[in-house]
Amino acid sequence: MTVSLADLNHMDAAAFAAAVGDVFELAPWVATAAQARRPYATVTDLHAAMMGAVRAAPREQQLAFVRNHPDLAGKAAVTEDSKREQASVGLDSLSQAELERFHRLNDAYKAKFGFPYMICVRRHTRDSILSEFERRLARDEATEFAQALQEVFYITRLRLAAKVTGEGLPQVNGRLSTHVLDTHAGRPAVGMAIELFEYAAARAHRIGGAVTNGDGRTDAPLIAGRPLPIGRYELRFAVGEHFRRRGVEAGDPPFLDIVPIRFAIAEPEGHYHVPLLCSPWSYSTYRGS
Amino acid sequence: MTVSLADLNHMDAAAFAAAVGDVFELAPWVATAAQARRPYATVTDLHAAMMGAVRAAPREQQLAFVRNHPDLAGKAAVTEDSKREQASVGLDSLSQAELERFHRLNDAYKAKFGFPYMICVRRHTRDSILSEFERRLARDEATEFAQALQEVFYITRLRLAAKVTGEGLPQVNGRLSTHVLDTHAGRPAVGMAIELFEYAAARAHRIGGAVTNGDGRTDAPLIAGRPLPIGRYELRFAVGEHFRRRGVEAGDPPFLDIVPIRFAIAEPEGHYHVPLLCSPWSYSTYRGS
Amino acid sequence: MTVSLADLNHMDAAAFAAAVGDVFELAPWVATAAQARRPYATVTDLHAAMMGAVRAAPREQQLAFVRNHPDLAGKAAVTEDSKREQASVGLDSLSQAELERFHRLNDAYKAKFGFPYMICVRRHTRDSILSEFERRLARDEATEFAQALQEVFYITRLRLAAKVTGEGLPQVNGRLSTHVLDTHAGRPAVGMAIELFEYAAARAHRIGGAVTNGDGRTDAPLIAGRPLPIGRYELRFAVGEHFRRRGVEAGDPPFLDIVPIRFAIAEPEGHYHVPLLCSPWSYSTYRGS
Amino acid sequence: MTVSLADLNHMDAAAFAAAVGDVFELAPWVATAAQARRPYATVTDLHAAMMGAVRAAPREQQLAFVRNHPDLAGKAAVTEDSKREQASVGLDSLSQAELERFHRLNDAYKAKFGFPYMICVRRHTRDSILSEFERRLARDEATEFAQALQEVFYITRLRLAAKVTGEGLPQVNGRLSTHVLDTHAGRPAVGMAIELFEYAAARAHRIGGAVTNGDGRTDAPLIAGRPLPIGRYELRFAVGEHFRRRGVEAGDPPFLDIVPIRFAIAEPEGHYHVPLLCSPWSYSTYRGS
Repeated sequence: MTVSLADLNHMDAAAFAAAVGDVFELAPWVATAAQARRPYATVTDLHAAMMGAVRAAPREQQLAFVRNHPDLAGKAAVTEDSKREQASVGLDSLSQAELERFHRLNDAYKAKFGFPYMICVRRHTRDSILSEFERRLARDEATEFAQALQEVFYITRLRLAAKVTGEGLPQVNGRLSTHVLDTHAGRPAVGMAIELFEYAAARAHRIGGAVTNGDGRTDAPLIAGRPLPIGRYELRFAVGEHFRRRGVEAGDPPFLDIVPIRFAIAEPEGHYHVPLLCSPWSYSTYRGS
Repeated sequence: MTVSLADLNHMDAAAFAAAVGDVFELAPWVATAAQARRPYATVTDLHAAMMGAVRAAPREQQLAFVRNHPDLAGKAAVTEDSKREQASVGLDSLSQAELERFHRLNDAYKAKFGFPYMICVRRHTRDSILSEFERRLARDEATEFAQALQEVFYITRLRLAAKVTGEGLPQVNGRLSTHVLDTHAGRPAVGMAIELFEYAAARAHRIGGAVTNGDGRTDAPLIAGRPLPIGRYELRFAVGEHFRRRGVEAGDPPFLDIVPIRFAIAEPEGHYHVPLLCSPWSYSTYRGS
Repeated sequence: MTVSLADLNHMDAAAFAAAVGDVFELAPWVATAAQARRPYATVTDLHAAMMGAVRAAPREQQLAFVRNHPDLAGKAAVTEDSKREQASVGLDSLSQAELERFHRLNDAYKAKFGFPYMICVRRHTRDSILSEFERRLARDEATEFAQALQEVFYITRLRLAAKVTGEGLPQVNGRLSTHVLDTHAGRPAVGMAIELFEYAAARAHRIGGAVTNGDGRTDAPLIAGRPLPIGRYELRFAVGEHFRRRGVEAGDPPFLDIVPIRFAIAEPEGHYHVPLLCSPWSYSTYRGS
Repeated sequence: MTVSLADLNHMDAAAFAAAVGDVFELAPWVATAAQARRPYATVTDLHAAMMGAVRAAPREQQLAFVRNHPDLAGKAAVTEDSKREQASVGLDSLSQAELERFHRLNDAYKAKFGFPYMICVRRHTRDSILSEFERRLARDEATEFAQALQEVFYITRLRLAAKVTGEGLPQVNGRLSTHVLDTHAGRPAVGMAIELFEYAAARAHRIGGAVTNGDGRTDAPLIAGRPLPIGRYELRFAVGEHFRRRGVEAGDPPFLDIVPIRFAIAEPEGHYHVPLLCSPWSYSTYRGS
């Protein structure tokens, strides 16, 4: 169920709370503060007001708010949104060893900081959630509490962008695209199969695929309409098959067959254009725009 | 034990047979024919004479000669040279499933052609030995018998090049080399770790490694002093670590970390130069010379 | 003055002739034939009908039609359209030596073929008009007469596309674009000066320039909205200045300063994307799409 | 006439002075000081001792020494070595306007600093001699006097390296080389014509050329056996002709014909490897090693 920003600006306080009160989990006071400062020109402004309410709250209230959030790998994902977010990144199906590592990190984290490990899972892969966990555990409490709030803001920004329609939506989506140019023919490589893999626990898992169109691009971006999960990826291009179909001599077996491009995504809201320029004997790639 | 071409040109027939009689397995008549046509200006000429003796032999004798060779994966590798060659490529340690596939192919091959599958294993990887087996099984008998003799000639050329010293050694060795240029700094990438993998049964097995020297090269070629085994390989360059040490900002995690270059070798006696030109955000490679 | 295809489909014969009768110069019979076959679904169909009328005419009428066209470098450009077209490519300001070469070619051409050298000047540069002249003079009469009609069709297609609005306009325009990626920073190169030169008589003449925007592109294509003149070009990118502004050490003087990319356009209706990927120490370019 | 370091180490003072006394022009006291500190293990050591004698001299003597040197563009090049060096870079044939600019700079320089503009012309092009002149004129006296001595040391190092044979010759030579790889064929580009130009007064002057050999290289470096003159250069590769000979379709006119690579040399004693990787539709270059 979405609601328009125009409607939000005019509805009564109860309706407002019903509409967006669960964006900040178990913290109805955030919506209460935000509804008082209406109207908003943009959804981004509305989110800024909500974040402002959190930032302006006494430290005790902030802490209680953060503590209200469920453990990431916990048994008690208290809201449907939380459950969905955790499932999306595969945290609902951890191996026994992974679960134990998670719980060990969870226990150490809560023992050290007194609040749960907050992370916007939709901006992460399983691997980066784990590596961030270890890295953040080593920080001091002030830095880490600021990070916890920042993660809440990432999470709520995504929720708000999904719930509210209207002007000035916050930039929450990234884009991963590619393009294949055949430098032997001086033309886009048409009909080349591409697969996209995500690395998890040192293994590549296929998460997508496409075939290049007449312009050497894929009809849709490889990832779009969501944040790009921080993590390691590999694109695999069927270069050998492309030149075999074109009848170009390239050795037997061909010098290049499947060309892997391994790269990392660090900016979930960024645009990653990772093209391939290839002949049967050479190729290059780069982060484009 | 090596022998010089000069000595071979002057020794008596018995000594000649003792010195190079086992180059063509269980076929002393090849050496007999070759010793009668001495002297030879080059080792290549000597091998040509030996091949000529085989080519000039009646078909029955050629067939008997080929049939004298052991099954590739057989229980009866009759000479020490044969055993060593088969072990070198890992054929002495096939899995049960692989052995069964081998035996199945062996049986089908011998049933169809009436002679064993000949292949110069030092010019091949496990994968290419198997894929060639399937491919050659589909051929007609005349083509395949010519191929069998050609493989014997590859094998004996290698043996002769190892046994005889002197002028005009046949070209039996290939070379795989690399070079890393840092296009961000405009200098060779010094101290970059490189690993070389061979693909077998769809998995990459590490077969070598090196660290680039002051010129961005490896002190020794990655493979040299032997034929390059036909097959699929992957070089992995520690690009992320290189730029981290140089203090260059490249994202977190860095856009490029381990850069894999996957390629095939099709010419065992060729020179494969596979360099990497890289910045933190781009790279290219090519078959160089 | 433009006219819509819908209006053309419904106006009387006199109005139709007044509107598009001069598309085929001094040949009112072409419009007469075309108006009789109305209506047309697309402007391309209308042009096809006009071309069909020429192709269906007796050879004598075709020849008279071609002969009615003015000499390319002549004193007697009989229509305003002809004059404008010839001026656009610089043919109104030839040097004395060039004029003499033109007249020599003109005389030889007319002596050999009996009709003037037809060429769609908007699809050409001064250089290609001259080089085509020499090349076409060497051909046989049948080939050359077909080429003369083809050039008339290029010319009239452009005129029609400029005069008539509506559905199915013929593809008459090409596009030249560029893009600069800084592979040192992994970002588009912003604010880089680019100049475009056309080669004429072995010298480069500046015909355009731009500065890259925030996406490393130029706000408008370097050439668009017209056919790309067949010829030789050079893009010059101020790479040295870009890295100097970024504070990147690149030698003194810098290894790369102005980077010239010299290329030819052979397809006036094509899209030429000629990007530059550059670090202070390396660059690459390609015909993209 | 060369002399060996071994002989220099043992000859009497008069012979020593006769042999190397003119390395430092009109300053016999430098050789006198140097002969007293024999023997020298390397020619580099001998030059270091000579430089040490200059550095240890009173300021008045240093100044007199520098003042003894002829004006660069002067009428009075007092030694044969000086004359030869100035001619080598084209300073003996300046245009009237250039001569006037030179004299103007000379007068201003001497008026400001009280000694002539010293520059090791063999490490420079006409262009860099002029641009350095303007740049150095803007400096303070202490910086510039140190630079003047440094230039004398460059000059004398070259003279000594040419005169004395033996161990430990100073590194005075640079090297410019290239290599062309055809990425369409995956092989070196054989038989490709290359021309080398030096820029002077914004115009390119052809200073060399070569044709690639079977390895895609030139039989000899483009510049070697001397310092690389600091300046701007352009390599021009006949890429279009190469692919035309190979019968590769590349457009008419071909997209790439002459490919210019414009670059600067800033390190006269360095190695500049400037290769070209090209297909008919793409190319790249870099400063290699």
